[in-house]
Amino acid sequence: MEPTVNESSEQRETGRVEAFSDGVFAIAITLLVLELKVPSVDQGAVRGALGYDLLRLWPSFAAFLTSFVAILIMWMNHHGLFRLVRRISGPFLVANGFLLLTVTFVPFPTAVLARHVLGPSSQIAAAFYCGTYVLVNVGYNALWSAATRGGLLHPGVSEVHVRKIRRAYGAGFFVYVAATGLALWNAHVGLALSTALWLLWGVLEYSEERASEEAGPSEVGN
Amino acid sequence: MEPTVNESSEQRETGRVEAFSDGVFAIAITLLVLELKVPSVDQGAVRGALGYDLLRLWPSFAAFLTSFVAILIMWMNHHGLFRLVRRISGPFLVANGFLLLTVTFVPFPTAVLARHVLGPSSQIAAAFYCGTYVLVNVGYNALWSAATRGGLLHPGVSEVHVRKIRRAYGAGFFVYVAATGLALWNAHVGLALSTALWLLWGVLEYSEERASEEAGPSEVGN
Amino acid sequence: MEPTVNESSEQRETGRVEAFSDGVFAIAITLLVLELKVPSVDQGAVRGALGYDLLRLWPSFAAFLTSFVAILIMWMNHHGLFRLVRRISGPFLVANGFLLLTVTFVPFPTAVLARHVLGPSSQIAAAFYCGTYVLVNVGYNALWSAATRGGLLHPGVSEVHVRKIRRAYGAGFFVYVAATGLALWNAHVGLALSTALWLLWGVLEYSEERASEEAGPSEVGN
Amino acid sequence: MEPTVNESSEQRETGRVEAFSDGVFAIAITLLVLELKVPSVDQGAVRGALGYDLLRLWPSFAAFLTSFVAILIMWMNHHGLFRLVRRISGPFLVANGFLLLTVTFVPFPTAVLARHVLGPSSQIAAAFYCGTYVLVNVGYNALWSAATRGGLLHPGVSEVHVRKIRRAYGAGFFVYVAATGLALWNAHVGLALSTALWLLWGVLEYSEERASEEAGPSEVGN
Repeated sequence: MEPTVNESSEQRETGRVEAFSDGVFAIAITLLVLELKVPSVDQGAVRGALGYDLLRLWPSFAAFLTSFVAILIMWMNHHGLFRLVRRISGPFLVANGFLLLTVTFVPFPTAVLARHVLGPSSQIAAAFYCGTYVLVNVGYNALWSAATRGGLLHPGVSEVHVRKIRRAYGAGFFVYVAATGLALWNAHVGLALSTALWLLWGVLEYSEERASEEAGPSEVGN
Repeated sequence: MEPTVNESSEQRETGRVEAFSDGVFAIAITLLVLELKVPSVDQGAVRGALGYDLLRLWPSFAAFLTSFVAILIMWMNHHGLFRLVRRISGPFLVANGFLLLTVTFVPFPTAVLARHVLGPSSQIAAAFYCGTYVLVNVGYNALWSAATRGGLLHPGVSEVHVRKIRRAYGAGFFVYVAATGLALWNAHVGLALSTALWLLWGVLEYSEERASEEAGPSEVGN
Repeated sequence: MEPTVNESSEQRETGRVEAFSDGVFAIAITLLVLELKVPSVDQGAVRGALGYDLLRLWPSFAAFLTSFVAILIMWMNHHGLFRLVRRISGPFLVANGFLLLTVTFVPFPTAVLARHVLGPSSQIAAAFYCGTYVLVNVGYNALWSAATRGGLLHPGVSEVHVRKIRRAYGAGFFVYVAATGLALWNAHVGLALSTALWLLWGVLEYSEERASEEAGPSEVGN
Repeated sequence: MEPTVNESSEQRETGRVEAFSDGVFAIAITLLVLELKVPSVDQGAVRGALGYDLLRLWPSFAAFLTSFVAILIMWMNHHGLFRLVRRISGPFLVANGFLLLTVTFVPFPTAVLARHVLGPSSQIAAAFYCGTYVLVNVGYNALWSAATRGGLLHPGVSEVHVRKIRRAYGAGFFVYVAATGLALWNAHVGLALSTALWLLWGVLEYSEERASEEAGPSEVGN
């Protein structure tokens, strides 16, 4: 669209959007701790009752841990994706904004899950949690789509690599939808399937020089 | 005022004010989620009652979504404005401080709106929400006024472009005041008008090489 | 202490401490909004009762506004001070840590003041608030002392300028202590005196080329 | 692993992980203040009752102060460690993620300690607090292990220096475990031992040119 703008200005723009996104990721991941509620002091409590109270908080600890890892993995994927992007566009900014919306939302379904996972609405809570990751996944699909269709990638990124990432994101969508549906039947199965996807996002290689040793590294990694 | 200070020092100053502002924007946008309150567990609740509880939270979700988009658009406009600014001054810093004050305030009227939009004080809540954007708009007008009167802009920014942005900000003021007044009569009309302005801020072009293809890009976008 | 370390490494160190401090300032200033409590919905409330409830929140709004401006002015002074500093030392880091401690503490006395300024303990609340700024001021004095005694300043900063800033900080200490004492007698007088000091911090010039036109700007402002 | 990637790209990667980590540290340290609860206004309170209420909050103030200093020292150590690192790897990222997890968790045991240190479960609260630092220490050990085994350090870092830091981290582990055990017997002894370790982390030198004057500074400090 704007071929005359020089490279360094483009990189600064991309860098600033990434820095803003990083801030949102860092804050969202740190706010998770606010959902952990301190057990109150019972007047007639026996010595050491707090130990039992803390143990009973295990759903909150598990939800805190799960969402922390989830946001951390999201951040690493976001960063990996941005390394392939040379410049940004309007649709890319909108997709990135939607993705950040879903990231900042994560602490809420996390708290809902922690509070309700042992109650009569555990399936709803689990489906709400898994459903949030459907939205997160839609954000990544939209971001990648905006990047590839708008020609925003570094020249060195091959079409094979583009398709590999698109396929991973697309497959993630169907698995998250399935996890959400399964959670309505059995909360644990849905949560397990949703969490299993971390393996995919954890190993997804964005840097082409790591994925295949053939491409020149200076084109992508610079 | 200080013609002897070299360019890179000026840019560093501007960059640091922008980085601080970016941090405030990123935190304010992420704090919005804290206003979403987790439905409590009712002892005798039937299975799946949480689903109904979550649905009843729709005003909170709508307010969260609305304010997220509003702050994101504010951030993009703030960034667009800063791209035209070469150096900063005292009045510019004061105006930027006032703008940040209104940005950090946004989560509060958002929470007020979410809690009261269905109650007997919906008009007050909506007017309070719309009125906050009057203040935000005053901040942008003050910032642009400080930038243009103090000669802080890049040399390449044309007088036509300066007037175009001033007119957009000025028109925004009257629309937000009108939205606040209308909200006292009908909450939905006020909120709709206020939200409709997003279209204006979303398409307002700060970069002159995008607005008109004539200007040299290196003057502004560097 | 470490004369062999080159200039760019020193500047990076200073820049990183400043970036961390900026983050703390930005978060503290944005957390202030969390102390504003949304008026609850009364079942039998008459139409528009929220308006009255919001008006009754004026002490919270006033405290929010006051502390926002206070932290913003602190940030500008912190930044101004860092512009004069070329490298950092252990004592400087400790003093900066103490200053950040007092900055992150500010939201708490702010909330105490807002809740109690109209109650029977208004003097205590005001003295607690003013006393916090005594601690903040001690932080600035310690920071400036560490910078000047450790020889951390840019070579171009004159002894006259060093003394001017030291005198301003030292005078501030006595005024804040006086404000704290006066607040115990009359809350309004103490708060007014404390706030009046903003004028001093707002106009205190750190950049020597602005304070006096004689010094070469490239020594300090680079 | 990837010898062809040029130096500046590696440094940018390391810098971005450090910037994200810095953000998490800055937010966690600032969130501590949210655990300080404003004393409520009692209707029939005598004049100045707030003073007594604030004094009774001393466990919260002490916990706030302790955790603030702890996170600040953690941040300085994190920064010192990163100065020795030239590039990052997968295991290093995982270890850093675990460390950040423990850092964001700190506000919770802090609040538990403040609430329970004077109650019948003070030993449990103190052990929970000290135990958190065992996890933090495990994070540092994992980070250093990933850095040294993966060959991620700057070439100028000597084996002697590597062993010195490893020994300090390893000793810290046993002391924190001992502090956790002792806290179950006597809360004060456990907390005192845990806090005494600050002296170790406060003086641990990461920069080799400070630790020994022999090494060339440009290799490490650049």
